Amino acid sequence: MVTLDQAQRAITAGVKAAQGMGVKVSICVVDARGDLLAAARMDGARYFTLDVARGKAMVSATFAQPSANYAERAGSPVMQSLNQLNGGRFFFAQGAVPVAHGGNHDGAIGVSGATAQQDEEIAKAAAAALG
Amino acid sequence: MVTLDQAQRAITAGVKAAQGMGVKVSICVVDARGDLLAAARMDGARYFTLDVARGKAMVSATFAQPSANYAERAGSPVMQSLNQLNGGRFFFAQGAVPVAHGGNHDGAIGVSGATAQQDEEIAKAAAAALG
Amino acid sequence: MVTLDQAQRAITAGVKAAQGMGVKVSICVVDARGDLLAAARMDGARYFTLDVARGKAMVSATFAQPSANYAERAGSPVMQSLNQLNGGRFFFAQGAVPVAHGGNHDGAIGVSGATAQQDEEIAKAAAAALG
Amino acid sequence: MVTLDQAQRAITAGVKAAQGMGVKVSICVVDARGDLLAAARMDGARYFTLDVARGKAMVSATFAQPSANYAERAGSPVMQSLNQLNGGRFFFAQGAVPVAHGGNHDGAIGVSGATAQQDEEIAKAAAAALG
Repeated sequence: MVTLDQAQRAITAGVKAAQGMGVKVSICVVDARGDLLAAARMDGARYFTLDVARGKAMVSATFAQPSANYAERAGSPVMQSLNQLNGGRFFFAQGAVPVAHGGNHDGAIGVSGATAQQDEEIAKAAAAALG
Repeated sequence: MVTLDQAQRAITAGVKAAQGMGVKVSICVVDARGDLLAAARMDGARYFTLDVARGKAMVSATFAQPSANYAERAGSPVMQSLNQLNGGRFFFAQGAVPVAHGGNHDGAIGVSGATAQQDEEIAKAAAAALG
Repeated sequence: MVTLDQAQRAITAGVKAAQGMGVKVSICVVDARGDLLAAARMDGARYFTLDVARGKAMVSATFAQPSANYAERAGSPVMQSLNQLNGGRFFFAQGAVPVAHGGNHDGAIGVSGATAQQDEEIAKAAAAALG
Repeated sequence: MVTLDQAQRAITAGVKAAQGMGVKVSICVVDARGDLLAAARMDGARYFTLDVARGKAMVSATFAQPSANYAERAGSPVMQSLNQLNGGRFFFAQGAVPVAHGGNHDGAIGVSGATAQQDEEIAKAAAAALG
């Protein structure tokens, strides 16, 4: 299980990575069930970025894979049905990576606000800080 | 009509088949109406697999065919409307097979958690045990 | 965490208790998050009883209390909002009890099909068999 | 406008207040629009508390008043419609307070997980730390 301390450390690292790139993003940490543990929207990031980051993290947590792996199948009926089963909150796009401790799938970190590629890099920087 | 005893026997056989493959799945048995009779989520199977298995079984029971036969038509407006009429719980993907006794359509068994092909094989193993 | 073996043992005990009362019910076991682990609908139990049992179990798991404690507040806006946040699947009525192991809240067992009082007694019998 | 730094400082103060009371809660900071700025779920707080805290903060931000002031009107058609206009995410219950700087309405802080009274006290402690 990811602790709140770890989640906040991850967010701090993600914000730092985003600042280094000169971008403004939202960062969300979810548990293995896809439920939100911690979230932050950087000053100037658009209002919708936080829920997009959460939706990417839900996809990543659900499949224990980077959300990018599912971006091309986003329009598929299977993914649409899965989204519907989860209240329409999924977001099938690059920018979230799973988090694992000692082989256990522990959740995911999702980012939104920059390019999809940058979002994923920031998510990885955040995940690396999780320890 | 599938009895609870039969449904539980089917689930036991499905779990055994999944263990033989080294995969963790959820298995759902529904009646001809698509309503759930019995369900089981194996230890370690992800949270969403049970409702996905149920959604596949609903499709299979509705058409008295393997759900795989409808995977390609999943995006059609007709299938989307049918799904909507059933509360958005349908899941148009391979992994469920119908159950019949002496020519009667009696329901379906749906599986989720492994590959779609494995899911269907487990569903068949479960159906075979129904007697 | 409740294992599938434990959940199935609980269902078997619940079915036996229901048979002893001469009633036909559905029994659902959910984890602490409210996600379904195992379910069974007894022969002759009405189609809707399984989802009602699930909804009661979700309420009990959410509050780590018997669902009966929330029956009188079912119509309150707070409970309606909580239900809405969970896809409308909650059912605020007597008949589910929480499950705990060594002080940990581990989920709940919900029953539907008999009187609310009988439903709860069956849920307790099922929970007692969980070990 | 509440900055992310301020929001995180508020959450840290709220967590500390909750720890002082021996309770486990989720804390959400939203802007004047009701959109999430920052959120945290304490270790051991139940899964639904974060979205409940968010829903309370949305109510508080919308009316620039403590959410407690709207708890009794929660069932009114006007409040239900307003909730519907906002995707069903409002939560009309005590536990959120508005945040103001120099007379400007700047958002709100919502808390869930303890008693409604404690939730509000924690929200106030968090708001006080916002500076």
